[in-house]
Amino acid sequence: MRKRVRELGIKSGSMKTGNRNQITDVAGVKVGHITLKEDRNEDHIIRTGITSILPHQGNPFLEKVPAASFVLNGYGKTAGLIQVEELGVIESPIMLTSTFHVGDVLQGTLEYMMNLTPEIGDTTSSLNIVVGECNDSYLHSVRSNAITKNLAGEAIQRASETVEEGAVGAGTGMMCYGYKGGVGTASRITEDEGFIVGVLVLSNFGKRNELQLTRYKAPDFDESEVPDGSIMMIVATDAPLSSIQLKRLAKRATFGLARTGSHIHHGSGDIVIAFSNGYTIPHFESSPYHHPPKHVRDDHPVMNQLFQGAIEATEEAILNSLTMSQTTTGRKGRIGEGIPYEWLKHEI
Amino acid sequence: MRKRVRELGIKSGSMKTGNRNQITDVAGVKVGHITLKEDRNEDHIIRTGITSILPHQGNPFLEKVPAASFVLNGYGKTAGLIQVEELGVIESPIMLTSTFHVGDVLQGTLEYMMNLTPEIGDTTSSLNIVVGECNDSYLHSVRSNAITKNLAGEAIQRASETVEEGAVGAGTGMMCYGYKGGVGTASRITEDEGFIVGVLVLSNFGKRNELQLTRYKAPDFDESEVPDGSIMMIVATDAPLSSIQLKRLAKRATFGLARTGSHIHHGSGDIVIAFSNGYTIPHFESSPYHHPPKHVRDDHPVMNQLFQGAIEATEEAILNSLTMSQTTTGRKGRIGEGIPYEWLKHEI
Amino acid sequence: MRKRVRELGIKSGSMKTGNRNQITDVAGVKVGHITLKEDRNEDHIIRTGITSILPHQGNPFLEKVPAASFVLNGYGKTAGLIQVEELGVIESPIMLTSTFHVGDVLQGTLEYMMNLTPEIGDTTSSLNIVVGECNDSYLHSVRSNAITKNLAGEAIQRASETVEEGAVGAGTGMMCYGYKGGVGTASRITEDEGFIVGVLVLSNFGKRNELQLTRYKAPDFDESEVPDGSIMMIVATDAPLSSIQLKRLAKRATFGLARTGSHIHHGSGDIVIAFSNGYTIPHFESSPYHHPPKHVRDDHPVMNQLFQGAIEATEEAILNSLTMSQTTTGRKGRIGEGIPYEWLKHEI
Amino acid sequence: MRKRVRELGIKSGSMKTGNRNQITDVAGVKVGHITLKEDRNEDHIIRTGITSILPHQGNPFLEKVPAASFVLNGYGKTAGLIQVEELGVIESPIMLTSTFHVGDVLQGTLEYMMNLTPEIGDTTSSLNIVVGECNDSYLHSVRSNAITKNLAGEAIQRASETVEEGAVGAGTGMMCYGYKGGVGTASRITEDEGFIVGVLVLSNFGKRNELQLTRYKAPDFDESEVPDGSIMMIVATDAPLSSIQLKRLAKRATFGLARTGSHIHHGSGDIVIAFSNGYTIPHFESSPYHHPPKHVRDDHPVMNQLFQGAIEATEEAILNSLTMSQTTTGRKGRIGEGIPYEWLKHEI
Repeated sequence: MRKRVRELGIKSGSMKTGNRNQITDVAGVKVGHITLKEDRNEDHIIRTGITSILPHQGNPFLEKVPAASFVLNGYGKTAGLIQVEELGVIESPIMLTSTFHVGDVLQGTLEYMMNLTPEIGDTTSSLNIVVGECNDSYLHSVRSNAITKNLAGEAIQRASETVEEGAVGAGTGMMCYGYKGGVGTASRITEDEGFIVGVLVLSNFGKRNELQLTRYKAPDFDESEVPDGSIMMIVATDAPLSSIQLKRLAKRATFGLARTGSHIHHGSGDIVIAFSNGYTIPHFESSPYHHPPKHVRDDHPVMNQLFQGAIEATEEAILNSLTMSQTTTGRKGRIGEGIPYEWLKHEI
Repeated sequence: MRKRVRELGIKSGSMKTGNRNQITDVAGVKVGHITLKEDRNEDHIIRTGITSILPHQGNPFLEKVPAASFVLNGYGKTAGLIQVEELGVIESPIMLTSTFHVGDVLQGTLEYMMNLTPEIGDTTSSLNIVVGECNDSYLHSVRSNAITKNLAGEAIQRASETVEEGAVGAGTGMMCYGYKGGVGTASRITEDEGFIVGVLVLSNFGKRNELQLTRYKAPDFDESEVPDGSIMMIVATDAPLSSIQLKRLAKRATFGLARTGSHIHHGSGDIVIAFSNGYTIPHFESSPYHHPPKHVRDDHPVMNQLFQGAIEATEEAILNSLTMSQTTTGRKGRIGEGIPYEWLKHEI
Repeated sequence: MRKRVRELGIKSGSMKTGNRNQITDVAGVKVGHITLKEDRNEDHIIRTGITSILPHQGNPFLEKVPAASFVLNGYGKTAGLIQVEELGVIESPIMLTSTFHVGDVLQGTLEYMMNLTPEIGDTTSSLNIVVGECNDSYLHSVRSNAITKNLAGEAIQRASETVEEGAVGAGTGMMCYGYKGGVGTASRITEDEGFIVGVLVLSNFGKRNELQLTRYKAPDFDESEVPDGSIMMIVATDAPLSSIQLKRLAKRATFGLARTGSHIHHGSGDIVIAFSNGYTIPHFESSPYHHPPKHVRDDHPVMNQLFQGAIEATEEAILNSLTMSQTTTGRKGRIGEGIPYEWLKHEI
Repeated sequence: MRKRVRELGIKSGSMKTGNRNQITDVAGVKVGHITLKEDRNEDHIIRTGITSILPHQGNPFLEKVPAASFVLNGYGKTAGLIQVEELGVIESPIMLTSTFHVGDVLQGTLEYMMNLTPEIGDTTSSLNIVVGECNDSYLHSVRSNAITKNLAGEAIQRASETVEEGAVGAGTGMMCYGYKGGVGTASRITEDEGFIVGVLVLSNFGKRNELQLTRYKAPDFDESEVPDGSIMMIVATDAPLSSIQLKRLAKRATFGLARTGSHIHHGSGDIVIAFSNGYTIPHFESSPYHHPPKHVRDDHPVMNQLFQGAIEATEEAILNSLTMSQTTTGRKGRIGEGIPYEWLKHEI
């Protein structure tokens, strides 16, 4: 039974966490996993999956959320960010999966949303799907076509308020800092206004000697065949922020990554997607105007608290993705070792 | 039998064209189409397809080309540009298709390239696929799942040096300036150094009253149900340019679009992708160094000639996409009318 | 007596103009010029100046305006855009001047604003000044230190609702398309909602053979010593737009430039700054919230009308900068010829 | 006598430092300071200055260096980055000063360079000056006009290979993490190829409780009147990198900032400028071609070493800026306390 980093006596920063200390502390957000683990034959060792993040409980095409992204290192295949940057909204669930199945998951999510919303592509506009990815080819046989597009809708339908962490969903085959990585999450509450910042990461980057969490020199491990990896960081908040403000929040999340030790390797696609469900923007509207609600002022202290929360929650989400991931064997007899707790520092 | 705009006595700008006046005047570039036209039943009126642009005759993963993109208006779903922007290279064929099949074409192209290159996802890195799109839902039943991922490889295999224009490939169901649009191409040669700039567009944007090509007020046409559209502009050159220079070239292509009359509507994803095959960057290389060849100097007159060439060729490619597209009926009894030649100005 | 292009029977596009057909049709906007013309000796032929654009009639630091910029070609020295991009506001007058005096005008405007607002740098934050520029070294002796920082405040104080065009203010020494260029302005009204889009340009770019305004081949002119130039395009509107929307509007202005014929030369810094004074954001505010007013919806037709207005007004402002500029002699016996009206097309 | 952080038994990361552990370990780089400290009267407490960074020993206009910038948080007034981003070169010394004197220093540096290079503005193009800044208004009377433009040239002329750190030059009046901040520098050597990465920072950001360097709760200090601050990070290397690669290096520097504890406050302009002097690009050249030398491959391990070096050197430069700054009194009786060494952790 794996533990969250806080249960091991380690915490990131000083802010209070939300109730669950998960991204779903942002009311309305849900997370779903499809986990695929199967040993068919030596060329088909399946260790992969899909994770969905639903921004709120309604149809995100009909009620879009303000959003932004920040690409720290663009060695990545995330789809859908061009439109997010232009319009400042997300209108689909955010999907995470293997690098080698972005197309399937994109197509499957599109078809799921089209079934849900008959107007799309018929009497109204097209739909922009957001799919992030990391490369799970160290443990997973990526050439096995394990993921089919119909699984995307299943990952959405399984979404719930309790987030399973570790080697599940899109995190099933991921490696982080030379140990088994995967899905991690955390949250923070701002002192003023009581806003929640929740983060979910898909961690798949780094070498053992970069990790700042371990007290002693980590045991040797041949990392030459581990790809440079990637990390997807999804930041959610209920604070009413504009898309330009969400871009600022997204940038801060990278500092949580920095504190865990990353050197942002060349081959690591390090990407943040941030959204607020503090208000929504309706798709169908006849008025020439959108009436935005009040926004947080950039220069009020609560904005710096949101920034701090994004940093702390990202750091802790990454650490949770490590401490919650159990040892997982993979293709070519490779072993993704769950990080041994005895190596951890008790203070970060 | 439709005609190219130059056969109609109209030409864009003053530079000399390449031999074919096509993107394939850039030696090594090839273009392939899959055209899907079928009336199954009233909900399955198929008017769609795929177009591939091959940057050179080798394997683009093994020999990458310097590249850049420019997003003029980001209401679009083009995949793959994050990595292009980070690394400044393209390592796959550039694929164009319907907005609603980016996932299928992305996945199919990835699988095609993986079959071609056994190391991908096994002993070497992942692969970044570039897929552009326009929304063909005015004429095409986008919910019919007409495009399957295996067709992507076919579109690549059909690539040749002679580019078919008009309502073919990805252009089968597109509308432009209230007339039938689709695929168009053109090229220019620089006076100094004799470099080629070739452009291929997938045109699907604009209202009749915006078009600067027509002499008189265009006949009435109910455009209320035509989506805002999009245009993909692919710019190729044999001039040895760095990726930062190719971004500059990409921006110039939009001025060709401007001259045809576009107002860059809100819902039009207007995206340029530029590459040079004047040199390539090998994937496998043990040296710590890449030895770039000589580059064109930013401040030499030939750079301005390349810029002018990109503008002129883009303008003429768009006009060719109009004058080469024949009238095409589509779903809901809609008609995409091939632009009548009698309406054209004889001087632009 | 020079004429505006419309008086010569030429108009850009189809939309209605504002009352003055100037940027000041956006209520509250004012424009001021300092024009410096003096022949001291052969090394001190002064043909330069400063132009100020005031976004509204109050103190722009205390009441900031939503804003954005777009850099089409970044061969330019415009100051202040980093903060505009981060925060989406402008908090100073927008100043235009010679490339070689950005520092003086920046410092002078800062000092003017600090005198006006005692809190700056003492009990409240710093202040971001926006200064744009073009290179007037063809006619003007840029090494003569003609502009001193105190003149910036004068240019602000002279601002009025009637905009003088041509070889005045920052436009005194500029060249455009091989003729005398400088300051030009125009405006448009949207059919829905009656919003105004006003544009002011400082034109200093292009070769004679690029200009689309002339009917016949332009007379010969040795352009080898004319620098590649630049153009500053300032777009104002009273439509309540967010900064992300103003960035979209800014991009459209470049299409007005395209229609006049520019090839965006390597050495031409082509930069757009757009703002709305449809609402303001107060500097001093104790609430954690900003209450934005209603915003124009991206997908309402009025947004496309604003886009079209920005294109048309930019095109006409550039043409006005040409037709309103009288012949101006300069250093080294050079002559910046006012464009002869007999060469103009009567229809664009 | 203040000490560097390494003398206090604290080091950032694991890589070897250069000989001096300063930015000037990159051969050819020099740094100069003008320090202004004077108490004229209570409204004129002068605590400010200028710092110059010379990229190599020649004229940077005639021999430009490849360069890039990264704006982490754009609440800043740095001038000159638009052209750096467009062309990927720096052609002037990099100047640092008070927020309130960017104009003076920009103008003074321009005039200095014009004196040095008679062709500028006469027979050749204009010149782009880069000036960064932080807000020293906590200790310094920014309204005192202490900096005049002629001092810029002096700061350049004083440049040497030995970098003075702490409360000197532009760092004279800066505050960092609630203590006295200012100028700090550090360097690293890559294991492969022996490249140097050197960093110089101007630190002026953060609250006491953010700093990760202190072991215990820092003593109380009223930080309500300290502006949010800013940090300029200048990264130099002798590794032959293209501008697109230098942008990647610039992004990594921010992770060094992250490790010291920053939350990237709203009002903190956090900006990185990176250049290589591993090769230069001549201004005057008649050939249409530039012959770039070999470049480091993105996917070779030495690139990750450069990234790590930028992180480590930035972290240590910031710590040096703290431990090297002595207590400095300022306006309104304010005290910028040099960080007491007894509070420091002995391991970071």
